[in-house]
Amino acid sequence: MNILHGNAVVGQSGGPTAAINATLSGVIRGALNFKKEGVIPTLFGMRNGIEGLLREDLVDLTARFFGNEEELKTLEATPAAALGSCRRKLTDPEKEPETYEKLFEIFQKYDIRYFFYIGGNDSMDTVMKLSRYAKQKKYELRVIGVPKTIDNDLELTDHTPGFGSAAKFIATTVKEVLRDISVYTVKAVTIVEIMGRDAGWLTTAAALPKLSGGIAPDLIYLPEREFDMDEFLSDVRAALERHPAVLVAVSEGIKFANGEYVGAGTQSGSVDAFGHKYLAGTGKVLEQTVKEKIGCKVRSMELSLTQRCASHVASLADISESVRVGEGAISAAVSGKTGVMMTFERADKDGYTVSVGTADINGIANKIKTVPDNFINEKGNFVTDECISYLAPLVLGELDVEYEFGMPKHIII
Amino acid sequence: MNILHGNAVVGQSGGPTAAINATLSGVIRGALNFKKEGVIPTLFGMRNGIEGLLREDLVDLTARFFGNEEELKTLEATPAAALGSCRRKLTDPEKEPETYEKLFEIFQKYDIRYFFYIGGNDSMDTVMKLSRYAKQKKYELRVIGVPKTIDNDLELTDHTPGFGSAAKFIATTVKEVLRDISVYTVKAVTIVEIMGRDAGWLTTAAALPKLSGGIAPDLIYLPEREFDMDEFLSDVRAALERHPAVLVAVSEGIKFANGEYVGAGTQSGSVDAFGHKYLAGTGKVLEQTVKEKIGCKVRSMELSLTQRCASHVASLADISESVRVGEGAISAAVSGKTGVMMTFERADKDGYTVSVGTADINGIANKIKTVPDNFINEKGNFVTDECISYLAPLVLGELDVEYEFGMPKHIII
Repeated sequence: MNILHGNAVVGQSGGPTAAINATLSGVIRGALNFKKEGVIPTLFGMRNGIEGLLREDLVDLTARFFGNEEELKTLEATPAAALGSCRRKLTDPEKEPETYEKLFEIFQKYDIRYFFYIGGNDSMDTVMKLSRYAKQKKYELRVIGVPKTIDNDLELTDHTPGFGSAAKFIATTVKEVLRDISVYTVKAVTIVEIMGRDAGWLTTAAALPKLSGGIAPDLIYLPEREFDMDEFLSDVRAALERHPAVLVAVSEGIKFANGEYVGAGTQSGSVDAFGHKYLAGTGKVLEQTVKEKIGCKVRSMELSLTQRCASHVASLADISESVRVGEGAISAAVSGKTGVMMTFERADKDGYTVSVGTADINGIANKIKTVPDNFINEKGNFVTDECISYLAPLVLGELDVEYEFGMPKHIII
Repeated sequence: MNILHGNAVVGQSGGPTAAINATLSGVIRGALNFKKEGVIPTLFGMRNGIEGLLREDLVDLTARFFGNEEELKTLEATPAAALGSCRRKLTDPEKEPETYEKLFEIFQKYDIRYFFYIGGNDSMDTVMKLSRYAKQKKYELRVIGVPKTIDNDLELTDHTPGFGSAAKFIATTVKEVLRDISVYTVKAVTIVEIMGRDAGWLTTAAALPKLSGGIAPDLIYLPEREFDMDEFLSDVRAALERHPAVLVAVSEGIKFANGEYVGAGTQSGSVDAFGHKYLAGTGKVLEQTVKEKIGCKVRSMELSLTQRCASHVASLADISESVRVGEGAISAAVSGKTGVMMTFERADKDGYTVSVGTADINGIANKIKTVPDNFINEKGNFVTDECISYLAPLVLGELDVEYEFGMPKHIII
C-alpha cells in the first residue's frame, strides 16, 4: 500500500447537529492513531469551515487532544460544530480560480495531504470539486466527505450521522407531549411542526412512541405527499371522534398540489403592517384553519432549533456510529481513497449492525433522498410499520452525559 | 394525638408538570405507610380531579401500588398528570350547594377522611373552600393542598414542585441553543420565548448557563418590568457590537407601559383574512421588529409545551422534593392538619437544604408571587447573581430515567 505521509485538516460545515462533534472526535481519534505510526504528524482544525482555512485560522487538534480521552468524550456530547461552521459553497474552479490557488498554497505551506469535510449536501459538493481539482493539479491530496445532517436526506448511505439523535429527541418530546395533552377531557388538537423542507424523515420519527407505550400521534404529514386542506380537516374530525386529545405531526415543508408551501400563509391570508404576506409557519396556518373550520381548542408548536442540538438526549447508536465514521474516514484516506463520502450500510440479519463504507462522491452531491413510498401509508397521513422498523435501531441507547451545575457539560475548542 | 381512621382520596388539577406524578407517588408512599398502621386502609385516585370525584370515577391506588416500588419509580419519571387533570374551579358553596352536597355524600359513601389536591393556584382555592365547608358541616375531613406549578408563583413557599425540572429543561436547552447559534460568524439574533404570563421565574432560568460554560443569553426580559421596544432595540444593537450571535430570552407575558401584551401583535400590526388582529406571539413580534428595524438575520422560537413535560431531563432535586412533599402531606394530615398547603423552606447555612412545612391556605390562594426586585438588574434586561444563586440548587442532579425502545418509559394508570 502506498502510504502517503503528511498532515491533515478537518472542517465542519452547514447546519449544526448533535453528532457533528462526535464525528470530529472520530477523525481526531483516527488521526492520533496514525500519528503514532508517523503517517499523520498533525491534524489541523479549520475554524468556520473553508472560510477559516482560507484565512489560515487553524487549530492544532493533535496537540489539543493527544492523550486527552476525557475531553474527547466531552466533545462527543457537545452539540453543534466545535470548530464553527460556514455556509460557503465553492463554485467551479473556472469561476473563482484564485480561491482554489489560495487553498492549494495553504495545503503546500502546511504540508496538508488529507482533507476531511464534515457536512451536508453542500459540503459534499465542496469535497467533489476539491478532489477533482487536486487531480487536475496533480497535487496528491486525499479528500473525504463525512456526512452529517439531521435531515437524513443523503443518497447512498442507509442513514446520516446526526439523524438518530434528532429522531430520538423528536420521539421523546412527542411521547412527553402526548402524555401532557392526554390529561384533559376537552376536545383539543395539538400540531407539532418538525423540521424538513424537502424530505419528511424527521417527522417520521414522531411515530416512534407507538413502540413505547403504544400511544402515537393520530396523523403524520410529510412533504413527500401533496397536502390537501379538506382531507386534513376530515382526518382531524375523524380523530376527534375517537378520543379528545388529537396530536398531528407535520413537516414544515408540506406543500399544496399547486406546489406552494402550506406555511406560506396563503390560507390564513395574514399580512403585516406593510401588507407583506406574513410567513406564519406551517403549524400556525394549520392551527388557524382548525380554529376557523372545526372550532375546537387547538395549539401548534415548533420543535425549532432544539431538534438539531439536543445532545442531552442524543442517541448512543448515533453518537457511536458518528465516531466510527470519523475514524473510518481516516482509515479510508490512509488506505488511498479520495473523492468519496463515508457511508453506513445496514445488515439486518442478526439484529441491527452497521458497517462503515465509502461511496463515490459524484453519486451523492446535490441529490436529495426522500422518504420512500413503502414508508408512507396509502392515505398519506401516517407512516408504515416498515418505516418504524427502519427508524427503531437508530434511536437506541443513551449517552452517558456529564453534567455540571445541573446542565450538560460542553467543550469549547 | 387524635388519630383519624378513614380512607383518603388524591387528585391532580391544572396544567401538567414533570413533577406532579412524583408528588402523587409521594402521597401513595405516605398512604402505604399508614395502611400498615391501619390508619388509611385505601387511597383512592380521582380521575380528572374534582370532576372525576363527582362522577365517582375512582381508582384504588393502594391496591395498584402496594409492594410495587418499580412502578412508583416509573410514575416519578412520567410527565403530566397520571390521574388526568381538570380546569374546574369550585365556586362558593352558596352558588353551587348541590356540588358540595354531592361531594360530601361521596366522602361518606367511601368513608373518605383525607383529601389531597395536587395543583396550582386554582386548586389551592378548591382546598380552601372544601376545608371551610367541612368545618361548617362538622364532617371531619382533613384537606391538604400540595402545590405544583412550573410557574413558581405561589406565595409562602421557597419554590414550587415542578419548577426545578422546567428550569433545568430551559437552562439545558438555552445552553444547547447557545452552542448551536455560535457556529456562524454572521450577525444573527435568536429570541427564545419562555412561558410565564404574570411572573418571569421560568425565564430567569435562561441565565443559568452562565454557571456552566460561562456563556449566557445577552438579554433577559421579564413581565415584572415594563417593556420598551426602543430600549430593547438599543440593547440588541449593543449586544451585536460585542459578538455576532445574540440570544434574547423573553417571557411570553411581557407588557408595554400601557399594559398591553407585547405578544398581542399591535407592533407588527398583523391581521388575518378576516381583519382580526393576528396573535403572533411575543417572540414573533420581537422577531418582526428586529427584522424591520435592525435588518440582521433573526429567528424566534417558543419552548412551548416541552417546558412543562420534559421529564427526560427532570431535576433530581425537584423530583426528590416533590416525592417528599407528597409524603409530608400524608404525615401532616394524619397529625391533624387541615386547610393547609404544603411548603418548602430553604436553609442555606451549610449548602442547600430544604424542609417540608405547611402554611395556612388562606394566605396563598389567588395570590401571585413575582420575581423580586433584587433578582432583576437595574436596566431590567438581565437577572442578578442573587437570582442565579437562588435558582442554582433547584436544577441539580439527574433522574435515573428508564428507557424502552430508545424513549423514556412512562406509566399509564
